[in-house]
Parts: sequence; C-alpha cells; structure tokens
Amino acid sequence: MTDVQLYDTTLRDGMQGGGMSLSAAEKVRVVKALDRLGIGFVEAGFPSSNPKEAELFRLLTEVELERTLVCAFGMTRRRGLAAEDDPALRDLVSCAAPVVTLVGKTWALHLDKVTRTSPEENLAMIVDSVNFARAEGKRVVYDAEHFFDAWRDDRGYALECLRAAVAAGAENVTLCDTNGSTLPTQVAEATAAVVAELGERAEVGIHTHNDAECGVANSLAAVEAGARMVQGTINGYGERCGNANLVSILPALQLKLGYDCVPADRLRLLTETAHFVDELTNTVPDPDQPYVGRNAFAHKGGMHVAGVQADARTFEHLDPKLVGNSRDVLISELSGRGSVLSRAQGAGIDLDADAAKRAVERIKEREHRGYHYEAADASFELLLRREAGEYQSLFRLESFRVITEKRADGHVETEATIKIWVEGRRYVRTAEGNGPVNALDRALRDAIGELHPHLADIELVDYKVRILDSDQGTGAVTRVLLDSYDGHESWGSIGVSENIIEASWEALVDSLEYAFQPSRRPAAPPRDEPATKGPGPAAATRGAAGSVADRA
Amino acid sequence: MTDVQLYDTTLRDGMQGGGMSLSAAEKVRVVKALDRLGIGFVEAGFPSSNPKEAELFRLLTEVELERTLVCAFGMTRRRGLAAEDDPALRDLVSCAAPVVTLVGKTWALHLDKVTRTSPEENLAMIVDSVNFARAEGKRVVYDAEHFFDAWRDDRGYALECLRAAVAAGAENVTLCDTNGSTLPTQVAEATAAVVAELGERAEVGIHTHNDAECGVANSLAAVEAGARMVQGTINGYGERCGNANLVSILPALQLKLGYDCVPADRLRLLTETAHFVDELTNTVPDPDQPYVGRNAFAHKGGMHVAGVQADARTFEHLDPKLVGNSRDVLISELSGRGSVLSRAQGAGIDLDADAAKRAVERIKEREHRGYHYEAADASFELLLRREAGEYQSLFRLESFRVITEKRADGHVETEATIKIWVEGRRYVRTAEGNGPVNALDRALRDAIGELHPHLADIELVDYKVRILDSDQGTGAVTRVLLDSYDGHESWGSIGVSENIIEASWEALVDSLEYAFQPSRRPAAPPRDEPATKGPGPAAATRGAAGSVADRA
Repeated sequence: MTDVQLYDTTLRDGMQGGGMSLSAAEKVRVVKALDRLGIGFVEAGFPSSNPKEAELFRLLTEVELERTLVCAFGMTRRRGLAAEDDPALRDLVSCAAPVVTLVGKTWALHLDKVTRTSPEENLAMIVDSVNFARAEGKRVVYDAEHFFDAWRDDRGYALECLRAAVAAGAENVTLCDTNGSTLPTQVAEATAAVVAELGERAEVGIHTHNDAECGVANSLAAVEAGARMVQGTINGYGERCGNANLVSILPALQLKLGYDCVPADRLRLLTETAHFVDELTNTVPDPDQPYVGRNAFAHKGGMHVAGVQADARTFEHLDPKLVGNSRDVLISELSGRGSVLSRAQGAGIDLDADAAKRAVERIKEREHRGYHYEAADASFELLLRREAGEYQSLFRLESFRVITEKRADGHVETEATIKIWVEGRRYVRTAEGNGPVNALDRALRDAIGELHPHLADIELVDYKVRILDSDQGTGAVTRVLLDSYDGHESWGSIGVSENIIEASWEALVDSLEYAFQPSRRPAAPPRDEPATKGPGPAAATRGAAGSVADRA
Repeated sequence: MTDVQLYDTTLRDGMQGGGMSLSAAEKVRVVKALDRLGIGFVEAGFPSSNPKEAELFRLLTEVELERTLVCAFGMTRRRGLAAEDDPALRDLVSCAAPVVTLVGKTWALHLDKVTRTSPEENLAMIVDSVNFARAEGKRVVYDAEHFFDAWRDDRGYALECLRAAVAAGAENVTLCDTNGSTLPTQVAEATAAVVAELGERAEVGIHTHNDAECGVANSLAAVEAGARMVQGTINGYGERCGNANLVSILPALQLKLGYDCVPADRLRLLTETAHFVDELTNTVPDPDQPYVGRNAFAHKGGMHVAGVQADARTFEHLDPKLVGNSRDVLISELSGRGSVLSRAQGAGIDLDADAAKRAVERIKEREHRGYHYEAADASFELLLRREAGEYQSLFRLESFRVITEKRADGHVETEATIKIWVEGRRYVRTAEGNGPVNALDRALRDAIGELHPHLADIELVDYKVRILDSDQGTGAVTRVLLDSYDGHESWGSIGVSENIIEASWEALVDSLEYAFQPSRRPAAPPRDEPATKGPGPAAATRGAAGSVADRA
C-alpha cells in the first residue's frame, strides 16, 4: 500500500526548462525507468499538441509497465464550446492513457486579466470537462492552477472550483503553486484547509515550483498537512527555477518522514535513475545535488572526516547506500592512508600497503605544489594506478609546439604540432584550433584516433583556470581543471604548471588516459581491439551544440 | 531597526565547498560587497588556522565598513586546557574582529564517539571559552554544532549546553543542523522550544545545510518559530550540497514574510552581489538560481508569456526589479541608461544623452557575446570613455605571435613577439615568459615602458578563465578576467574571444590602458612627462611574493 503517490511530470512540465528536448523513444525510456523506480503516475505529455506526442502515447500502449499509470495532460474545455466539441479535449480523452489530468483556473485575477472568463463560466468549464473525461472512462486529476494565489485573494471561490471538480468525478484535486510564490507555512495552512473540506471525497495533491528555493519543502509541508500525492520532476527540471524535485522529495518522505511512496527495495535506484535522466536530456549532473550528487556525501574538513570514521551518523544525514549513492571523501585534506585505500578499493585498484604509503606521499607533495584532487577524480585515480603498477600509458610525448598569431588585419590563428609515439609508431600531426588547448586536443586525437577511435566520443565539457598564489613561498602556478563527459559518465582531471599551456596539456592527457584505462571503462572496447561503433550520443551532441571546451 | 540579522559565512563555511579558494584581498572585496548589501555579520574565517587568515583580519582593520560586523570563528577550548592556555583560542580573541563565534558540541553521541569528552567536561569547555572571550571584550555567538541531532537524542542536555553558553555571556546561541538531516517542521518545533526557554536572555540563530534540499526552508521555519539571526552563504556555497543560501533567504524574509533584514534600498543589490561573488570564486552563475538567475523571471510556455503581458502578477512571484534582476534575459543590471550615466559621472566622464544611448547599445551587444562587466570595472569605464570621446589609446598593435614549445627533455618554453606603434614610432620586441600571457605582457611593457615607465608598477594579481556556453547558438567562447593592482587601487578587466590568447590579450590591454587614462589616475604622472619615481610598493611586493599572474 502506498501512503503518498508520486506523480512525475518530467516529460511535460520538466520539458519547459531551458534546452530540454527528448524524442518519443527517449521519453519511453524515461517512463520505463520511472516505472522501475516505482513511481505511481507519469504524465507523458499533451496528446493534443502535436503528432510527436500522439506517437508517444501510441508507443506507450506497447510498453508493459509494472506499476506506473500513464497520465495525459490538457486544459479544461474552451469557453463557449461544449466539452465534446472541443478538439483538444477530444484528443485528450481519446488517447490511451488511463488517467487524464485537467488543468483549470481558480484565481479571479487570472480569470479577469488573462482569460477574460466569468467565475460562473469557469466553474461550468471545470464541471463539463471532468464529466466528459469520466464519461469516456478516464480517471481524472484536476490541477488547480494558481491555487495558492487564489487562496490569498478569494479562498471561497478557490474552494468552489475544487468542489466542482470533485462533484463532477475528479478523484484528485492538486493544488498548484504555479508561479512559485508560496512558502511552506502558507502551503501547509491552505492544504490543511482543503483536506479538511474535501479530504473525505477526494485525494488532495500538491504541485510546486522552486522560485523561492522551497519547491521540495513546500511539497513536504503539503504532505504533512494531509496531501497524498506529490507532483514534481526528476532533478527538478522545469521552467525558471524548476519544478519540485522528486529526487529529493522521495527519500525525505520515505526515509525521513516514514511515508510509503515506492517499494522499499526500489529506493536504491534513485541515484542511477537521476543520472540516467540527466544523460538522456544531456544535462551535466550537478555534483552538489542532494542525495544523488557525487559530493552529496563527500567530506573535506579534517574534523568531519574524523567524525565520519568514528561514527558515520555524526556527519551523514543518512546512509548513502539507501539511495544508491556512495560515501566519497574529498581528496584535499585526506592524505590519510585509510581514505586512499578505500578510494583504490572503490575503483578496483589493487593497492598494497607500500603503494598506499607512496601514494600518500605523492598526494601530499602534489597538493603542496597546487594540485587539488577534489574535482579531479580521474587524475587522482591515475595517480593511484601508477603507484599500484596498474597504469597503462596511452602514448609517449616527444614534443609539442603551439603557435598563436594575431595578424595586422586582426585575424587570430592557432596551430599545434605534436610528435608522439603510440604502440611503437611515431606520429607527427599538426592541427589548427580556436585556441591552443583545442589545437593540441585536435592534433593529439588525430594522432591516437587511428588506434583508439572510441576516444573521439569524449567531450570536454568544462575548462577552468586559476592562478594560485602558493602559501608555501614557492611562487604562483596555474591550475587547470577539465571536466569530460562521454555520454554516460563525467570525470574531472587537473594540470598544474607555471605555464598555462603545459597545465592544460597535463589535464587533457589525464582525461584521455583515464578513459583509456581498460579496467575502469567497461563500456569502452579493449585497447587492442579498435571500436567499430559510430559516434555515440555525446559526439552527436557535440556536432550540434559545439563542445564548450572547443574554444579554449 | 533590524528584525532578523543575516550572518554570512561564505568566507568560512562556504570555502569548504569543492574547488573554493579566495586570496585575502579577494575576501576583503567580498566583505565590502556584503557590507554594501547591508549584511549585519560576516564571518571572515578562523584567525588561528594559518598566516593567510591572520593577514585577512589585519587587512580588514583597514577597511571602513558601514554596517557589517566582522566575526572570527573558532572552537571552544581544548579538553584539559585552561581557556587562556589554548593557543587557538588566544589567537581567536586577540584578532581584531569585534565578534567571536565559538562552535561547541551539544550531542551526546558526538561527544562519546568522536571527541571522547564527558558531558560535564563539554559544559565546562563551553563556559570557560565564552567567559574568556567576554573577558577579552568580545561579543560572542555560540554555534551549537549538531543541535538538531542532539535534540532528537537528548533535548535536556542540548538545552543545558545552550544555557551554559548564555549564562557565560553569549548574546546569541545558534542552532546548527550540521549534517543537514532535519526537515522544516522539525526545525520549527525545536527552535520554538529553545526560544520559549532562552529567548528572553539571548537571541536564537539558525544555521542549516542543504542536504535535504531544505536549507532555505529550514531557515525560514526557524525564523517563523522565533529565531532572529540566520547564518548562510552567498549562492549557498558549502560542503556537500551547500549551506543555506542567503541569496534566497533574504528576499523571502524581507519581501514575502515582512521582516526587516537589510535597508530597503539595498535589496536591489542582491543580483549584482550574488554574481560578483560567483565571479570572484570562478563559479559559473546558475541560470536557474531563484531570484537572481538569468532564467528566474524568464518565460517559455506560450500561455505564460501571454499571462505576464496581461498582468505580471499572474506568472511572476515578485517584481524582479526588487532584487536587482530583470524580466529580460539578456539585460544585466549595468545596461540601464540610468546606471550608465551614474557610472560615468562617478568616473568623471562627460557622457551626453546620445553617447549614453550608444553605450547602452554597446553593452547589450557585448553582453550578448559573453562580456560581463560586473567584475570588470576598468573595461566598463574604457567603454564609456570611448563613447564619450575621452578615450586615449596607449598604442596601436600591428601584430603579435606567441610560441609555446615542450621539448623532448620535458622543458617548456614560451616566447612572444609583438610589433606595436607608440606615439608614431614602431617597436618590435620579443620576450620570454612563464606562459603566453606573461610573455605578451613582458614584451608589451618592454615596448611601451620607454615612454611610460610608470606602467611597470602595475601588478597582475589575478587571472581567471571561464568557458561560456552561449545560449544564442553562437557557440562557446572563452572569457578572461584579469585583476590588476598598482599598490593603491585594484581594478578588473575582461576579454572575450574564441581564443584564450586573444581574450587574455584584450584584458591585458584594457588593464594597462585603464591605468594610462590620465583623468582617471591622479597618482600617475601625465603621459608627456615620464615618471622619475622608483619602483612603488606594488613592485616591492611583486619582488617578494611573485606576481600571481606571472605564470599565466
């Protein structure tokens, strides 16, 4: 039995976020992933809006879902039309989804200024539309748009709209904080009043946005006030500041407040599901994301690390395994043997006691010179591999040269020449680029691409440079951090040098070598068996949008 | 009068976040920005931890702050030592900050498992430490670490710790949700109980983290339960999932809940301040950030746009101007006519109406291409001077070439050649450097130094690079921010280009040209009268510490 239903609108409201778009086939993959996680309702889209949406609903009829009910979203009938004569409403009820979610107005200001509809006509629109969907055999959720603004202005009319929907057969009325204006205590007060009034006859739902950075808290406040369904999106995607983030709401409800939302064994799929949806939407996962981010359970401060080692409860709000995440101690202040050993173990590196001791010395020495492994997991792992004797070199550099010229006509040109050895053969390559790092990257990939074509799929997604004023009196150095992404996973590498070009080169080489270590990259073909697959999703995206690091 | 005090810990707890680091001079700039915004308390750091922090507290004594009180953070005395014999505590009370924030334990589990201290000894540590700080004339805030976990386990002992701090003279006890485990209703309940018990004798504060995505809501819940001070960080920086975000807490308290936190006219600096701190920490501003993100008031869905046009209230939770943001995605806070005119006036530039209009157009066009003038005051002023016809060119570039080579023996060399015209004469100069920017800088100063020797005193103190992924489909660009310092004043310049070398060159030229504009630089000799003074304090500093930008 489920105490609180989760209703996912990633595929409808989430797609209003900047840069979001998914094909029908990708949307089906999202629905399947949400079903596996145990989400009760998934809003797939507007069936009326375009043929792609119609195709999606058709595809969904062919998918066997264990737990999820598919919902179709649409508006109440148009003013002045009978419900059965409204083409959008007809499309909505004739699609295969068993649940129809109807959004309608509740706020007098909105009726007056935007839709220019009388309060009475609006009530009739609600009643007719719900009646029509029920008569067609649909289960109906009524989304009360702008509910909390309406409640502040005229709670009598707001309640009347809800009552009309329930009387016409809506099994759920969902209170929407459409423009994200409301704070938790206000949500709690209004929700409690609605539950007291209608809770016997219908389920009350909540739909919030993150404009006041309270999207999650508002959802929790509504549940504590009696709401029993929460609408939100994976990773909080959505217009403006996003929708309520189901990835944070689910563990709070289930682990912290004791409500049943998904089967107990499914919660461990949370991190994986959140990253999978990020991958499909080509979003770089937020490392600081609550519960599922790679920093969510990472510790830096010396005393905190000691605390976690003594008793994890002292510095962890829950066991990361419960949500499928893991404890990741940030490297910086962790030149301790224990943490190095646990990192090596996590990466499947066989580090004996002597090697661990050498690794610790190496880390300390490098941190002293300005390295910082917190955001450079790939470089850190390569360092451990080197000490463990498990490191495989991708190539050997003979020399490189980069030239940037600005000509009298203002035109700027950059060209890099590299000379390297790969598996006993010497390669000399020259490439032009938008900048020195890009030119070096191109020349290098050109040279190694013949033997390792799969490395072409790696996209350099971020490039950051800092000048470090060393505390140790050794003078200033340049630190380059590079983030790479292969369509499945992202990783960070670092380079430190007096010279920005040399520091960039070091980070670039670490990024590619990390991807190349065979034990680490199960998806990549072994190095002596060149991949035959075409460009992956990352490469396709790169072509369309341009890699952000192309310009460095 | 302030109803609720804001206490910023960006410079202490915020710096625990991954990849965060700021120099002492940058921290001073943050303190000044927070003072301007009207934040009451700013925690600058641990005075005991290292000489850099000591330098920061010394620098802060030279800064005149209008409203902000500087706080120094440290722990209660060590077990078994008298407070006055604890070196860390002595450093803490002997620094110049008027407020000392002492963090101490409150949770039995933590005392038992981590610090292995008896509950009685812990109480004595609190009392002794607060007494000592009070005796040294400090105002004291007591941070009760793990307060909410303690409250769940043994509220009697948790309260006893607070009572001890208050009895010893702490004016504020702050309840810390150290590991971010707590949800808003739980925060509200515990806070209300503490306020009922101690509210007559001390102010109650709140310090939360975002592990459950409730950092902001937890802070608001505490205030609604009677807390009167909120600790947090700008943009929610901090370890794991971050600290409570003051940038969201401030407008919620002041605009939505009606508390007074900062003077009413300061709230408009919110967006600018949030972005300025992002710039300094080299953090890419989150476009979806509540209140201050460039998408926070942007609308995509067709019906929403129509709603905004009919009545903004229907789809905006507040007027973006109130927090210094705007509905127009691209226009930043600097591109209004009024702000351009007031900036020009401040710099003594005579900008007429037509020139102001052209400047606004130019700024918009450049912002569209990735320029960002918030941290580049020098480049902004040069832009205004150009439109006003008051710009004096320092030189004319014919061409440059930079070569970086890494030889087979691992040695890296960089050399730049520039050809420029200065006052009718052609100069060709070649210089070596630790990196391409340094080599260009040396060659350029060598060429212009003959006529303008005072420009040698300028030190390039920071150099930051960011890759910007443009929304406009124009592809990614590189943005370089350069901070310069002449021993009296520091200024920022910016360059944007596909090519990092070209972007760096642009920022470098702006930095020197800014210093060269005679009306701007009263300390510099006029351009036709070469300076005879020796190396200034900046040069002396450079010699001792090495310019941090020498290595770029």
